[in-house]
Amino acid sequence: MSASTIRKHHGVFHWKGVDVLVYKQEGTAPFKDVTRQVLFDGTDMPCELRYFEVAPGGFTTLERHEHVHNVMVIRGSGRCVIGDEVHALAVNDLVRVPPMTWHQFRAGDAEPLGFLCMVPAHRDRPQLPDVQEHVALGKLLEP
Amino acid sequence: MSASTIRKHHGVFHWKGVDVLVYKQEGTAPFKDVTRQVLFDGTDMPCELRYFEVAPGGFTTLERHEHVHNVMVIRGSGRCVIGDEVHALAVNDLVRVPPMTWHQFRAGDAEPLGFLCMVPAHRDRPQLPDVQEHVALGKLLEP
Repeated sequence: MSASTIRKHHGVFHWKGVDVLVYKQEGTAPFKDVTRQVLFDGTDMPCELRYFEVAPGGFTTLERHEHVHNVMVIRGSGRCVIGDEVHALAVNDLVRVPPMTWHQFRAGDAEPLGFLCMVPAHRDRPQLPDVQEHVALGKLLEP
Repeated sequence: MSASTIRKHHGVFHWKGVDVLVYKQEGTAPFKDVTRQVLFDGTDMPCELRYFEVAPGGFTTLERHEHVHNVMVIRGSGRCVIGDEVHALAVNDLVRVPPMTWHQFRAGDAEPLGFLCMVPAHRDRPQLPDVQEHVALGKLLEP
């Protein structure tokens, strides 16, 4: 009972009984140095709460989908692309990724970017940009 | 667009554009020194993510309901009652409150207890203990 009721924080953004997973199980979409931990799955809740950590210099896949992402930064700092905007991110900042909006999360060079992400348990699969879109979106992140 | 997409952390566990609300809108259930902030509402997501903060010496209502609570501590420390168990809580600890299980969150005397709580957007109303139950559960928290 206790095992499923309380999961103690067990070090630096690791939890007892929570596995550190690869970011994505399949596909060829580009990303770099991202881990995934499922803090609360959708067994008895219509949403999941995951913790993603992007190592310094890393980034998540640039993608979009119909379902909304609700994100809260809880470690480090970085930047995100949401549509055609780039935002600096720090601990406790909140990000809502609207439906069908390109988005990517990037850590800076000095520290990781760790964030919670709440999503519906039943959700559509991400779409990837074509080459032209990728180039246009990539320009947003140039120094 | 930016206003709803990014909500910057705006001080000590306050966010730009997020109101600090009373803990409960109605009823006579006992609680002490608790605030509520809705970080993500259920407009386009089947769940809500709220931030509750219990001031030093404060506590939430002792209650139970059919819906599950998924909790993550993000500030301070304290204790929780979950069923007939009492657990110490610190930052980043995770708590799952199962259906129809009595629960209460309490801050210690020295610092607040702040936690995220994910719940279904559509959920049943809390039930309160009768006097006998309240006394029995209260004994769990005696020093």
